[in-house]
Amino acid sequence: MHKLPKSIDKLIVQLSQLPGVGPKTASRLVFYLIRNSNIDTKSLGEAFTNLKNDLQYCETCHNITDQAVCDICSDKSRDGSLICVVEEPLDVIALEKAGYTGRYHVLGGQISPLNGIGPKDLHFEDLLMRLQGSSEVKELIIATNPNVEGEATAAYLMRLLDGLDIKISRIARGLPMGGDLEYADELTLSRALEGRNEVAKMR
Amino acid sequence: MHKLPKSIDKLIVQLSQLPGVGPKTASRLVFYLIRNSNIDTKSLGEAFTNLKNDLQYCETCHNITDQAVCDICSDKSRDGSLICVVEEPLDVIALEKAGYTGRYHVLGGQISPLNGIGPKDLHFEDLLMRLQGSSEVKELIIATNPNVEGEATAAYLMRLLDGLDIKISRIARGLPMGGDLEYADELTLSRALEGRNEVAKMR
Repeated sequence: MHKLPKSIDKLIVQLSQLPGVGPKTASRLVFYLIRNSNIDTKSLGEAFTNLKNDLQYCETCHNITDQAVCDICSDKSRDGSLICVVEEPLDVIALEKAGYTGRYHVLGGQISPLNGIGPKDLHFEDLLMRLQGSSEVKELIIATNPNVEGEATAAYLMRLLDGLDIKISRIARGLPMGGDLEYADELTLSRALEGRNEVAKMR
Repeated sequence: MHKLPKSIDKLIVQLSQLPGVGPKTASRLVFYLIRNSNIDTKSLGEAFTNLKNDLQYCETCHNITDQAVCDICSDKSRDGSLICVVEEPLDVIALEKAGYTGRYHVLGGQISPLNGIGPKDLHFEDLLMRLQGSSEVKELIIATNPNVEGEATAAYLMRLLDGLDIKISRIARGLPMGGDLEYADELTLSRALEGRNEVAKMR
């Protein structure tokens, strides 16, 4: 079989390593880039090359940042009485978009014995020290993912923080906005029932 | 809202330009790259940067190559009596995988008045010159895509080559292998009927 030019072949091989990108998607992307002169492959390449240059984890909350302490932790205007515990930096982005203005603590994953990840591999101890070292924090919101491992992680966290004089809450699980009761799965629906809120009476 | 580290933000913006990649997919990819240390972002970046360095179009067949004349055109062991006309370099890859051993002619697209692409924008004249200049070619296979524009391009080509003493064929359109007659669309089924072949009798 005829061989592709080396530069094309290299990029296809490199791109095929990415999640959700097979050799076919990779070659389609590469040929798109060759045809479309308005995408600058050089600056795209630079962005990849420089990606990890200054990245580090925040000393306080373990979010990804390019400083020793991240923007969120050093921002005095944010609500220091709230800490939201999440699994990954991506969750921080999602909550930021939702308008959350407190601080975060990024665990770095979820407890998952099947994948060999135990409590020691996550940033639980730092969180405990952080809470014990400050009297500012009034509430801790557990926002791990609503799946088996996320629930286990939340349960572990609740046990760990049991003795502390801090309000501990868990983000609500229920029907997603725009969702349809008819198509909701049983577990979601049962959680939506459990988590029902009293509505204010109109007078 | 909290800002992402610059290097992350830059790569997300760059990736979002790619077809089929929105800001959400882009950020997921970037955070995957940050977490997975076994993917070397530097060599991925290099591959992007060097992509277009030596690329050019083959003088003869207009396929993408890193030489003046591509591997396929300069390979004497290939069947020079066959030329397969395709729209894009990606089509060449597909046909190579299917085991085709003749030569190619890449048109560079399909006739599409809606997108302002007429016959002058494609490599028709080169093809005509190529055929008139050589007595080697015995058959020309038209392998444009089986859609409206591809069929129009094929029709134009057939008219253009009408006077030449060369066999002209069109790749078969019919049911895809592994397909299901029940789920085939009408047009495909009608083409499959039109293109039916007599089977050899078993004795």
